[in-house]
Amino acid sequence: MLTLVIYDITDDELRGRVAGFLKSKGLKRIQKSAFIGELADGDRASVEAGLRLLVRNSDRVNIQVFPLTPASYNRRSVIGVEYRYDDEGYLL
Amino acid sequence: MLTLVIYDITDDELRGRVAGFLKSKGLKRIQKSAFIGELADGDRASVEAGLRLLVRNSDRVNIQVFPLTPASYNRRSVIGVEYRYDDEGYLL
Repeated sequence: MLTLVIYDITDDELRGRVAGFLKSKGLKRIQKSAFIGELADGDRASVEAGLRLLVRNSDRVNIQVFPLTPASYNRRSVIGVEYRYDDEGYLL
Repeated sequence: MLTLVIYDITDDELRGRVAGFLKSKGLKRIQKSAFIGELADGDRASVEAGLRLLVRNSDRVNIQVFPLTPASYNRRSVIGVEYRYDDEGYLL
């Protein structure tokens, strides 16, 4: 299932760890705080479990995980430029 | 159609204008840089046109607009706290 993960994390270091974790699961960064990718149902559960573990001691975190249909992705509109990011989420 | 808008905008003032515009279109903020809401097809086109107009002179903007099925929204997972924001996107 195509999966979109968007997050709102105040702490820079934690945000970087979350990004690194999502990347390690094969998701692709599409914005500074958004990743997308194909995940099997079991993998989605393990990604969610991993995220909960990563942020368990933080009170300023909101992460939302959306299962997407292929049509949702294919019909998305992109306005503006395509950014590229380094591993810390800074613009290249 | 349920519509998710996520954005990555470097400029604070422009980001605030985009947020205000999305709010004026009846979308609801779910993260600092993410809004969601129901839009008729024509309204979605006019939201996209309005966004393009707002950011037309900026080269550091990426906005992505996803049409979502109700199932995508109902099956989303939320990890962490629910934030509340003021009109400038700062945490309350």
